[in-house]
Amino acid sequence: MNAKTPEQSKTILTDLVLPSETNPLNNLFGGELLARMDRAASIAARRHSRRIVVTASVNHVAFNRAVPVGSVVTVEAKVSRAFTSSMEIYIDVWTEDRESGEKTKANEAIYTFVAVDETGRPVKIPEINPETELEKQRFDAALRRKQLSLLLAGKMKPNDATELKALFV
Amino acid sequence: MNAKTPEQSKTILTDLVLPSETNPLNNLFGGELLARMDRAASIAARRHSRRIVVTASVNHVAFNRAVPVGSVVTVEAKVSRAFTSSMEIYIDVWTEDRESGEKTKANEAIYTFVAVDETGRPVKIPEINPETELEKQRFDAALRRKQLSLLLAGKMKPNDATELKALFV
Amino acid sequence: MNAKTPEQSKTILTDLVLPSETNPLNNLFGGELLARMDRAASIAARRHSRRIVVTASVNHVAFNRAVPVGSVVTVEAKVSRAFTSSMEIYIDVWTEDRESGEKTKANEAIYTFVAVDETGRPVKIPEINPETELEKQRFDAALRRKQLSLLLAGKMKPNDATELKALFV
Amino acid sequence: MNAKTPEQSKTILTDLVLPSETNPLNNLFGGELLARMDRAASIAARRHSRRIVVTASVNHVAFNRAVPVGSVVTVEAKVSRAFTSSMEIYIDVWTEDRESGEKTKANEAIYTFVAVDETGRPVKIPEINPETELEKQRFDAALRRKQLSLLLAGKMKPNDATELKALFV
Amino acid sequence: MNAKTPEQSKTILTDLVLPSETNPLNNLFGGELLARMDRAASIAARRHSRRIVVTASVNHVAFNRAVPVGSVVTVEAKVSRAFTSSMEIYIDVWTEDRESGEKTKANEAIYTFVAVDETGRPVKIPEINPETELEKQRFDAALRRKQLSLLLAGKMKPNDATELKALFV
Amino acid sequence: MNAKTPEQSKTILTDLVLPSETNPLNNLFGGELLARMDRAASIAARRHSRRIVVTASVNHVAFNRAVPVGSVVTVEAKVSRAFTSSMEIYIDVWTEDRESGEKTKANEAIYTFVAVDETGRPVKIPEINPETELEKQRFDAALRRKQLSLLLAGKMKPNDATELKALFV
Repeated sequence: MNAKTPEQSKTILTDLVLPSETNPLNNLFGGELLARMDRAASIAARRHSRRIVVTASVNHVAFNRAVPVGSVVTVEAKVSRAFTSSMEIYIDVWTEDRESGEKTKANEAIYTFVAVDETGRPVKIPEINPETELEKQRFDAALRRKQLSLLLAGKMKPNDATELKALFV
Repeated sequence: MNAKTPEQSKTILTDLVLPSETNPLNNLFGGELLARMDRAASIAARRHSRRIVVTASVNHVAFNRAVPVGSVVTVEAKVSRAFTSSMEIYIDVWTEDRESGEKTKANEAIYTFVAVDETGRPVKIPEINPETELEKQRFDAALRRKQLSLLLAGKMKPNDATELKALFV
Repeated sequence: MNAKTPEQSKTILTDLVLPSETNPLNNLFGGELLARMDRAASIAARRHSRRIVVTASVNHVAFNRAVPVGSVVTVEAKVSRAFTSSMEIYIDVWTEDRESGEKTKANEAIYTFVAVDETGRPVKIPEINPETELEKQRFDAALRRKQLSLLLAGKMKPNDATELKALFV
Repeated sequence: MNAKTPEQSKTILTDLVLPSETNPLNNLFGGELLARMDRAASIAARRHSRRIVVTASVNHVAFNRAVPVGSVVTVEAKVSRAFTSSMEIYIDVWTEDRESGEKTKANEAIYTFVAVDETGRPVKIPEINPETELEKQRFDAALRRKQLSLLLAGKMKPNDATELKALFV
Repeated sequence: MNAKTPEQSKTILTDLVLPSETNPLNNLFGGELLARMDRAASIAARRHSRRIVVTASVNHVAFNRAVPVGSVVTVEAKVSRAFTSSMEIYIDVWTEDRESGEKTKANEAIYTFVAVDETGRPVKIPEINPETELEKQRFDAALRRKQLSLLLAGKMKPNDATELKALFV
Repeated sequence: MNAKTPEQSKTILTDLVLPSETNPLNNLFGGELLARMDRAASIAARRHSRRIVVTASVNHVAFNRAVPVGSVVTVEAKVSRAFTSSMEIYIDVWTEDRESGEKTKANEAIYTFVAVDETGRPVKIPEINPETELEKQRFDAALRRKQLSLLLAGKMKPNDATELKALFV
């Protein structure tokens, strides 16, 4: 099973924000954006693994910028690191101004997917070879995030989370 | 502005899982569940603050249990702690077996909402008085989560995250 | 098969009114509310019977209050009486004012569901033991409604509808 | 304001039953059919009155026939009688067998709509001149239904419901 | 297999334009109208053939008139000509003014469907006997359109497209 | 107003085929694909013109390949030629096999959009500078298509359609 690059799983979902997806301030519901990101990320995970994939978790997501009705939203998802059968997917979200064409970063999010067979059992997947500087940073950070995740789930002891502990001590 | 209890914002959204919301294993898409939780949480936040509310962030969410098509899913959201203008909403998700009636915990999630006025500016909201043992635990943990969130966003230094640092040192 | 209380089937569906569900006056379509009530009622029927359930009928429903876009609507459904394999579900609908938090009764409706097996054949279900005063009133009225329903369908003669006839003579 | 015929308001909505609209037996949800009938009826009411119309009530509806996924469903709505500002809409629903082409009556329903101005206040509408035998029967029955409706709402006394009382005494 | 008339496949889909289906000028998206026409046309094709039908192509469609939110749109589809296993469906679209009741032609479109068996293989279908003058014109024009379609697909040589060539030489 | 390249308007919409979008053979409805292509094309048109855009027409589209439920569909749209205020958008659609990862061309389509101001009046837009060989071919062919379109609409005489006439004579 040959390693693959993040670029090979790159998935772009560009779409409009419709009135039925907005809150009383006429901005995109956070929940709708989470659902769109999940769809793009699941396709990236499937492109990397060529398997059925299921959402395992979503990392902390901050909604810093409102996305108004009528906006064009671009969701771009790439596998940032692969473990035995799970993958971390890094998602970047942009909106663009209609008149100036200027793109603004609206969100980042990190989802984890697991590749499974038809009965739902995890299967082995290819590794990731990061290429660009940004892909390498995200690849390295993925390990720290996995430790934090295990730690918060009570599946790892603080002292074993060596990458993470280094931040505090 | 009088403090309120978590019970006063309790919001229940019980609904079916439809075929258009499921993945190739016929289980509810993670993204759909995130969107339902966002809707329930936004109503709880609104009941606490009586203001327009917008999603500020969603904490790490793990999807440990598949939710099959045709299931009844109950999403229950309560404000667990209020800060100046932001609220943490704790969400519990259950599915139930049709034949036995047994309820199974499917998920927990924590969303943060901000109360705003008509122009989108944050406004002051009432405090929370936790009542039950569980509500008190969640109220206390909310402070640690806020520190972690500020830390990850680069808005607090590790040494100032006293609650969190105590976990490692 | 032990009798159950209405409380055991209680189902709450709280959700927002979205722009795609409203008429030219920006109020919730009557048809959308009928569909939401059907979903909540079907879950209550399923909780009582622990069977597959199908809508058999909906009683006369009056729409006395407009429900504006952006409202929070709470649909609460409980089994009010069970017959051999059919159940009457009583549904109460409230909206609440965002600023005052005041709840207003928007609608009442009564649906009848039938419990069936996988081939669609009716199956026997538990009886109902009403507990509160309101549950007892609704339990008693259910019999009159069943007679009216049979009468209007031509399956009962006016003289046999003793409960109903008493209203006029 | 000239009287109109039921035919002038006739509205036909033919559409497929999609998988996202079906229950666990793969038949159309009762609630979905109620929503489709509401949309067709609202258009018929609008064609008669040329005004904004809102659903006032829906009469007792029985679901006698399951409508399987993939079916073609034809909803036909006509104004059966007009009162000062309210209209009764009679709705007939058929399904058809793909192979034989045979049409089967699946449902009948009666909705009442009110014509209103931009502020939601009731306005006067044209009368109905029934033409066919069936239209005349439905026109006559509409008065009995209106009495029953007022009676059940407590807005008419049993002794004043002369049309209805005649059924029992 | 007896020939049928266009009238026997006539399919009417009348429905409202909802806010979630409109562009920034509050008019119906072209793509939504294309999807509605496809649904109506597929039912007409099925009524003619009594078979499973799949969209084979859609002819050039011009959107000459904007259809504003809240409009009533009537889509009427009839089979205009049948070939061995394919059918041409002619679709007329009207909107109507709420106040005057005046109907305006909004669009015409021509879709081609193929009748298939359960494995997706084309099957033979009945011929069409046009009755009205308009149906006869559309029946004749269907042959020219088929030639143009084959020509553009590179499946017919310009010199063999006799009907079409006559337009230019 | 500087000319732009097709690449500057490139829009990618990658998404799954859900069960609610499929026909009885479990393949994507033609009408759904037409709607997705319209959304992607409208974004490309907007990126080129930085204006509100409305669908003016869609060229003949053939559906040669079925797209099964669960497929990943990639819709890629680029402006191929700009006229005074109208743009031709060329759309390529691929599906990909989950296991092999192989991409298959499923469709091509050509939509025309018009750029308008807030009142719906056409406005001037930048020209297109094609770069690749394929972009140049599509740029040249756009003129022939425009002539055919004007001819079919009766707005140009056959003898003036010089590009087109050359095909036959």
